[in-house]
Amino acid sequence: MAANSNEIVVGIDVGGTNTKFGLVDSAGNILDEGRIKTTDYTTVELFVDALYENISPLIKKHGDKTVKGIGMGAPNGNFYTGCIDHAPNLPWGKDEVPLAKLMTEKFDLPCILTNDANAAAAGEMQYGIAKGMQHFIEITLGTGVGSGIVVNGSLLYGCNGIAGELGHTIIRPGGRKHWSTGSRGSVEAYCSATGIVITAKEQLKKKAYPDSKLREFKVDDITAKVVNECALKGDKLAQRVYSLTGRILGEALANFVMFSSPQAIVLFGGVIKAGDYLLKPAKKHMELNLLPAFRERVKLLLSDLKEADAAILGASSLVQKSKATKAVHPV
Amino acid sequence: MAANSNEIVVGIDVGGTNTKFGLVDSAGNILDEGRIKTTDYTTVELFVDALYENISPLIKKHGDKTVKGIGMGAPNGNFYTGCIDHAPNLPWGKDEVPLAKLMTEKFDLPCILTNDANAAAAGEMQYGIAKGMQHFIEITLGTGVGSGIVVNGSLLYGCNGIAGELGHTIIRPGGRKHWSTGSRGSVEAYCSATGIVITAKEQLKKKAYPDSKLREFKVDDITAKVVNECALKGDKLAQRVYSLTGRILGEALANFVMFSSPQAIVLFGGVIKAGDYLLKPAKKHMELNLLPAFRERVKLLLSDLKEADAAILGASSLVQKSKATKAVHPV
Repeated sequence: MAANSNEIVVGIDVGGTNTKFGLVDSAGNILDEGRIKTTDYTTVELFVDALYENISPLIKKHGDKTVKGIGMGAPNGNFYTGCIDHAPNLPWGKDEVPLAKLMTEKFDLPCILTNDANAAAAGEMQYGIAKGMQHFIEITLGTGVGSGIVVNGSLLYGCNGIAGELGHTIIRPGGRKHWSTGSRGSVEAYCSATGIVITAKEQLKKKAYPDSKLREFKVDDITAKVVNECALKGDKLAQRVYSLTGRILGEALANFVMFSSPQAIVLFGGVIKAGDYLLKPAKKHMELNLLPAFRERVKLLLSDLKEADAAILGASSLVQKSKATKAVHPV
Repeated sequence: MAANSNEIVVGIDVGGTNTKFGLVDSAGNILDEGRIKTTDYTTVELFVDALYENISPLIKKHGDKTVKGIGMGAPNGNFYTGCIDHAPNLPWGKDEVPLAKLMTEKFDLPCILTNDANAAAAGEMQYGIAKGMQHFIEITLGTGVGSGIVVNGSLLYGCNGIAGELGHTIIRPGGRKHWSTGSRGSVEAYCSATGIVITAKEQLKKKAYPDSKLREFKVDDITAKVVNECALKGDKLAQRVYSLTGRILGEALANFVMFSSPQAIVLFGGVIKAGDYLLKPAKKHMELNLLPAFRERVKLLLSDLKEADAAILGASSLVQKSKATKAVHPV
């Protein structure tokens, strides 16, 4: 579909704490934006009402433009059904919530829903470093580890809309127990911000690096941000945390590459601020674990989307790219 | 494309030892078949000449039919390029060999090449237990472990035609060294016939099961077939080999499921003769390692194609399903 300069899309990123929204034009400019607190609403109906109250004035303000639809990224958002499937971290997400349908009824606009990592991948493909790529995997390294897999220029949804849960694949069988799923040795257990803090605390219990700056913090004050800042200042223990994390990430990436043979892996999210302390071991151990036919062929890239904008852009790009499909919940 | 009863396809399965071929009609009947010894030919040109000498009389015999094309499955066969990429177990496969092009030039017929596991998946989708499925993963458990991944009704090839090397994904980091790739802890290192023999020999070194029938064999005479026969006769050590193998297979399958969310995993090849001794632990450990959203949703199936026919049918189905694409090497 050719870009239409008069068309805009509503992009909405539903997070566990905040929900951000924006009006996005076909070139990827955010014309207006805002946010509400997700946790302020106890039912999905109240949440949708609040979105309507906050977004419809923005739509009126840009009344000379045509609103093509609403794109939403949300934890456990299912592209096929338009429902949020049992999202434990949303106050009203406990059951199967038909969010896309409710949005369409309220706004009188078609709505596409997907999970947040898929939305990030869609944004990367439309506006980011993966522009023009037909095959790539987006790995979001934040509080958790998410993934969006692009195959033949489209997001991979599988038979039921929930494909691409690479953060929950097991890379250390019998290893670290996941705080929420209870599984042992998942990628998320090690490579998320939460996992990095656990690794840091494990390392602090050892005797190596007695002079580490991390030892000056109370254990409960150690966050991924603190570990990152110490690593960037040259702290060897903090750097070791990233080399351990990067090794596990790299091994997992090798497995992903041998599944779908992408042109690139794109890393996104707060954890990538560690830069080469994470990237170098990740690249090294990815290559080490690949079959020769795959080696030195896959780019390992950092997202170049601004984190604050990426979620809104990603959600909006779902609609920008859409043709009429069953996944669009029509008016 | 509607089935045309007057159209036939040449299906060819190139193996390390034998190359089997057959003429297949649009209903999946093998009208005529034959084989040559792959190892008898030192160059690919001699190999193609021998195929021509053996197959063209069969084509003449069915001169009332139209030959639509040639479908070939071969180790390291690349669907995009029509080349065999560095197949160490083929006498003339050391470099990049343009097999599809050479076949087309010799036979004056379009030719589609893919790797052997992809061909098996294509056959399963056209004629086997995966008929009508849009999303499934075929795992071939033979001397090695191969895979063909079907997404949205099509084989997944990735950016360069080599996607789907799930046998080489790592499931036991730092584990058993692979005899050929040198990687540690790959699925193939444990779940192939070769891996099963190694596991059996490891178990025989332990003191458990002193009365095992496997102890009556010379170590060098223990094959996967022997382990299988002993397990089926009730031998506890042989059964333990399958429960160890099934556990690792199941853990790997959970990772694959969380990648592409298939309707089913279809297992194929000699190793599946162990039946429930392999399947039950595989199913159990697959379910144990899946996120709740995936549990009890994915069928674990055994291929119902006759192994002797499957490779020819699979290769032929590449052409039966094909539309005009860049991967068809036209006359």
